[in-house]
Amino acid sequence: MTTRSPVTRRRVLGVAGAGVLAGASGAGGFAIRAARDDSAAAGLTHPFHGEHQAGIVTPAQDRLHFASFDVTTDSRDELVTLLRVWTDAAAAMTTGHAVGSTVATHYDSPPTDTGEALGLSAAGLTLTFGFGPTLFEKDGRDRFGLGARQPKALRRLPHFPADNLDLSRSDGDLCVQACANDPQVAVHAIRNLARIGFGTVAVRWAQLGFGRTSSTSKAQDTPRNLFGFKDGTANLKVEEAGDVEDFVWVAGGDDARADWLAGGSYLVARRINMHIETWDRTSLREQEALIGRDRAHGAPLSGGTEFSEIDLGTAGRDGPLIPLNSHVRLAHPTLNNGTRLLRRGYNFTDGSDRLGRLDAGLFFIAFVRDPDRHYIPMQRQLASHDGLMEYLQHTGSGLWAVPPGIRPGEYVGQPLFT
Amino acid sequence: MTTRSPVTRRRVLGVAGAGVLAGASGAGGFAIRAARDDSAAAGLTHPFHGEHQAGIVTPAQDRLHFASFDVTTDSRDELVTLLRVWTDAAAAMTTGHAVGSTVATHYDSPPTDTGEALGLSAAGLTLTFGFGPTLFEKDGRDRFGLGARQPKALRRLPHFPADNLDLSRSDGDLCVQACANDPQVAVHAIRNLARIGFGTVAVRWAQLGFGRTSSTSKAQDTPRNLFGFKDGTANLKVEEAGDVEDFVWVAGGDDARADWLAGGSYLVARRINMHIETWDRTSLREQEALIGRDRAHGAPLSGGTEFSEIDLGTAGRDGPLIPLNSHVRLAHPTLNNGTRLLRRGYNFTDGSDRLGRLDAGLFFIAFVRDPDRHYIPMQRQLASHDGLMEYLQHTGSGLWAVPPGIRPGEYVGQPLFT
Repeated sequence: MTTRSPVTRRRVLGVAGAGVLAGASGAGGFAIRAARDDSAAAGLTHPFHGEHQAGIVTPAQDRLHFASFDVTTDSRDELVTLLRVWTDAAAAMTTGHAVGSTVATHYDSPPTDTGEALGLSAAGLTLTFGFGPTLFEKDGRDRFGLGARQPKALRRLPHFPADNLDLSRSDGDLCVQACANDPQVAVHAIRNLARIGFGTVAVRWAQLGFGRTSSTSKAQDTPRNLFGFKDGTANLKVEEAGDVEDFVWVAGGDDARADWLAGGSYLVARRINMHIETWDRTSLREQEALIGRDRAHGAPLSGGTEFSEIDLGTAGRDGPLIPLNSHVRLAHPTLNNGTRLLRRGYNFTDGSDRLGRLDAGLFFIAFVRDPDRHYIPMQRQLASHDGLMEYLQHTGSGLWAVPPGIRPGEYVGQPLFT
Repeated sequence: MTTRSPVTRRRVLGVAGAGVLAGASGAGGFAIRAARDDSAAAGLTHPFHGEHQAGIVTPAQDRLHFASFDVTTDSRDELVTLLRVWTDAAAAMTTGHAVGSTVATHYDSPPTDTGEALGLSAAGLTLTFGFGPTLFEKDGRDRFGLGARQPKALRRLPHFPADNLDLSRSDGDLCVQACANDPQVAVHAIRNLARIGFGTVAVRWAQLGFGRTSSTSKAQDTPRNLFGFKDGTANLKVEEAGDVEDFVWVAGGDDARADWLAGGSYLVARRINMHIETWDRTSLREQEALIGRDRAHGAPLSGGTEFSEIDLGTAGRDGPLIPLNSHVRLAHPTLNNGTRLLRRGYNFTDGSDRLGRLDAGLFFIAFVRDPDRHYIPMQRQLASHDGLMEYLQHTGSGLWAVPPGIRPGEYVGQPLFT
């Protein structure tokens, strides 16, 4: 594949129509070229290639567009071709280039890039790809010959107490998480991947998130969720290298039948609707007791400041200072076999329902090494005992295996197919 | 009403719980204080008080949360009380303060502010209020004794060719346009207004917009819509003072029965779905012919650069260089009685439909002096002849009268009620 001197989106306007000639490489009708990252001047960029996929321990960007896709072909070759073309497009977009920016403008063809991000920087865009259980087996069929390599933990998540899942917002053969500091950049990326995939994949569902609810780096402020509380104070952060190895990345010996997943992870997504109107009529005292932290500062009710250790033992007048049904207690590592979670969730609102209530909440995303050990037990405990559940309803769910990072010249998930 | 030394959101955390005492002023159960703007340090703020409401000629911010409300009471007094309380809350939030930030924290009451914007700046927030036709008469009833003062142009917009309106995304007794450079700030504002209004109003529908599609100041770059084209190059801008007077602000003698509207405007909202997947398969030549501009630079097809005058007359090989059915021709002032439009639209995407197509498009907002002269004729012409209509469907619609600016001590729309 020819790699031309790349053109950033900020520079493309200066040369559009200048007739840069390049060998055509048809892929679904769209000629696409890999581009290297020379666009430091065009805003924040994160490396696309590496040991792990970007968008996991990358400091959480402000905005999200998450999409779940179903594969509409039964052809393994077409699926692989899509992953190749997506990889090239992702490498271009995450470095601030237009899709197909190194090929000439053909006025009688559709543009290779939909254009709404022309002039915008990369805005810290990351694209993270995942493979759902149905990619390996769907309705009893192994469409792509992958069944023997399905990771053992890659199954539909079990039913949790009080789940009220909308199947049209759940699951999917593939997922793409687009995070960026500019929502137009994230939307542009998902749209172009969907466009490129026409005939091979179709969007099953998608979710926009307008504000991050976790920090994944100690360099970031702790954001607030729609309950008005700081969220993710105790989140696993990239600087905690040992815990990241233990709880995020799948290791070489973890799963003999899915050696291809080493260096990858699992992505858990949960669309959590918040009963905001009810919450807003709850006293501050009750709110803080349910969370286990004070609202203003995020400090544990056992005292100190935001990052003070939580003291689960000390009693107050009415029981422990950190109530037994409080969220921070039930999510605490000591009650979860020492597990720590790397979350990258986002606040969302999707308008309002027929009763005039905001359809809003938290789109929960976590990356875990083993869902069976690092997510399902904790969620079972929270769904059963967390006092916050009175104000929550899980309305969407999905689990995907996230292949390892992409090396130059490879495509995403290549170890699974070779 | 007591005005205390205001507390910005960035500073509130330092004094929360310090027990600032203030006379309680119950209003729907929430004590609220006006706050003055001393928060220049807390990010960009636009003055809340003035001759005209903010959010009209204010340089368009990046993000939108638009909400339409129905009034659920028949009491004029309750409606007026709501407008007073909304005014105080809007004055606080647009200057970066928490709602009720000057009163003491009461742990056994719900918080006066929902909290998710604590620590965030004002982010250029503006809140712009409008009154729909149904506020004056609904189902033949004049609930609030306002019928005699209904502006003559304030009627449901007529049916336009190819309209396919969803009534659950159209109309409403009141509207609030929240614009900010941080979506969490815009969402927080609408949520708090809805919360404050509980028992008096209910959200009828709401729309989030992630990217502005117009510039309203010559200091701003022209953004791109989801067709990938620069949008709003010829938009009316705040610097064009004469045209703003002619086409945006209702003048004193415009409407004898609605003298209260002088200094105000009309807000036209149209939810315009774009058939993105079809557009993306159209050749660049066809796309440019439909728009009448080139995609890369936004220059008219008659030549020059983005801001060159459009030459409607010059012929090319196949007819005028600016095609007869092109958008820029049909929207051009010379074909619209000299009318120029001040638009403040936003790109939106609300997930995807059952066929996997993105539910996306442009949430069109315009402020006009007289819809009968400055919007309806142009839209009728576009809906009938614009080649772009093949790729568009109008799925929501609303018209509101926007009262003039608010003076200190007044509430929004006060001239209508006195």
